[in-house]
Amino acid sequence: SPLRPAILIISETAFKDPATDKAGNILRETLKAEGSDKWTEPWIEIVPDDATRIQNAVRKWTDDEHNNANMIITTGGTGFAVKDITPEAIAPLIHRPAPGLIHAMLAASLEITPFGAMSRPVAGVRGKALILTLPGSPKGAKENLQAVLKMLPHACLQAAGADSRTMHTGG
Amino acid sequence: SPLRPAILIISETAFKDPATDKAGNILRETLKAEGSDKWTEPWIEIVPDDATRIQNAVRKWTDDEHNNANMIITTGGTGFAVKDITPEAIAPLIHRPAPGLIHAMLAASLEITPFGAMSRPVAGVRGKALILTLPGSPKGAKENLQAVLKMLPHACLQAAGADSRTMHTGG
Amino acid sequence: SPLRPAILIISETAFKDPATDKAGNILRETLKAEGSDKWTEPWIEIVPDDATRIQNAVRKWTDDEHNNANMIITTGGTGFAVKDITPEAIAPLIHRPAPGLIHAMLAASLEITPFGAMSRPVAGVRGKALILTLPGSPKGAKENLQAVLKMLPHACLQAAGADSRTMHTGG
Ligand code: NA
Repeated sequence: SPLRPAILIISETAFKDPATDKAGNILRETLKAEGSDKWTEPWIEIVPDDATRIQNAVRKWTDDEHNNANMIITTGGTGFAVKDITPEAIAPLIHRPAPGLIHAMLAASLEITPFGAMSRPVAGVRGKALILTLPGSPKGAKENLQAVLKMLPHACLQAAGADSRTMHTGG
Repeated sequence: SPLRPAILIISETAFKDPATDKAGNILRETLKAEGSDKWTEPWIEIVPDDATRIQNAVRKWTDDEHNNANMIITTGGTGFAVKDITPEAIAPLIHRPAPGLIHAMLAASLEITPFGAMSRPVAGVRGKALILTLPGSPKGAKENLQAVLKMLPHACLQAAGADSRTMHTGG
Repeated sequence: SPLRPAILIISETAFKDPATDKAGNILRETLKAEGSDKWTEPWIEIVPDDATRIQNAVRKWTDDEHNNANMIITTGGTGFAVKDITPEAIAPLIHRPAPGLIHAMLAASLEITPFGAMSRPVAGVRGKALILTLPGSPKGAKENLQAVLKMLPHACLQAAGADSRTMHTGG
C-alpha cells in the first residue's frame, strides 16, 4: 500500500498568503509523478520561520502512532539568512541521522550549481518517519528531492518496521 | 611495524550462527591483500544489534592502553531498519569526527549505486584508534573500506601519536 | 562595502616563529585576488594548538558587535594527529552548521587527491560571522577556500542580516 507523505512549507510570505507558495505544489507534483501506488496525496501545512511551530508540525506527524506520516519533507529556511532556522529546529527531533541522504542531495545540487553549497540540509529518521529538509526555491527543492526520491520508499518501509531481509539494503 | 585492525560484525543472524557471516571474512581478506607489513591479522568479534554490546566491544579495543587496536571497522546496522542502531551506538564514543572519511566512503558508494545514499556511516578517532562503520552487505562493506583504505595507515599512525611532520598530512 | 575577513593560523611552529608561516600569506593573497570591493585586508592572528586560545580568538572576532569579522577562516589542526583539535575547538562555537560548504570543500579536495579524506572540516555561522576550518598545508588551505570562495560573500551578507529576497539564495 502507498506511503503517506507530508509537506511542511516554511515561509513567512506563504504563511501570510498561501497563494504565493510555489514549492509546495511542485513537491506535490513530483511525488504524484512517482505513481499513486507509491505515495498518497500529501498532507500539507504552512508555518512561518518559527522553531516551535516547525517542531510542533513535525511532531504532530511523527508522534501520534495512529496518524503518522511515513515521510516529512520541509521546504525553506535552510540558507544562511538570520531567519533561516529550519535545520536548527529539525536536527534535535532526529533520532537517527542519515548522512547518506544529505550527501546525495548536496552532490546532486553541486552538479547543477556551486550555490548548492549554500544549503544546510538535515535528514534522518524520527520514530517511524523519514524527515528531509529541502531548500525554499521550488527548483532547488525539486532537484534535491529527485536526487534521492527512488530510494525513499525503501527507507520509509524499513523505518516503519518492514522486514529488511526481503528488501535491497544499504545497511 | 604493522597496525592492528579489529572487525566488529554486528548481526543478529551471524551472532546466532557465525558460519553465516560473509562480511567479516571479506573484510579480513581485503586487509590481508594490503600486505602483512601494513595490517596484522584482525581481531574479530560478533555482536547482535544491541547498543551496549556494540559499545563494550569497541571500548575493549580502545580503552585498554596495553591492548589497543589501531583501527576498528564495524559491519552491519547502518541502514534505516528499526534494528539498525550501529551509528547511534558508535557516535557517542567518537572523540574526533572524520567527515572526510565519511564523504569519501559515501561518494564511492554513490558512484556504484544510488542506494549508497541509504547508508548512515560514522567515522572518527577514539583515543588512539580510528573507527569506521561499514554497511552490512559484504559487497558494500568491501567497497566502502576500499574507498579509504590507502589513507588509513597514515591516519592510524597520526592518531597513535606518530610525528606528523614526517608524514604527508591532510590537516 | 567590502566584507571583513579574519585568518586564524593554528600552528605550534608559526606561533613560536611567525616567519615560518606560509598558509596565512597564501590565504590573504587568495582573498586579495577576489578584489578589494569584496574583502578588506584580513585581521590575522597566530595561536598554538590549544582549544582555549583558538576559541578566545574566534569569540573576539564574533561576539563584540562593534568589532566583528564577517568571515573567519582557520588553517591548521584539522588532521588526525593527537595535537589536531581545531574541529573540536570550533564545533561548539557554531550556532548554525553549514554541511553544504563542508561537502563542497571535501568534494574539491578529493578530486585533487584521495588524501582529501584526511581532513576533518567544520563550517557554519556564529552570530553574524561565517566560520570555515581549512587544512594546515598552504596548498590544501588554498584549494579548500577556492572551492567555496565565490559563494562566501553572499553567505556572509545573509548571515549579517541582508535582505535575502534581493539575493540569489540556496535556502
Ligand atoms: Na561528493
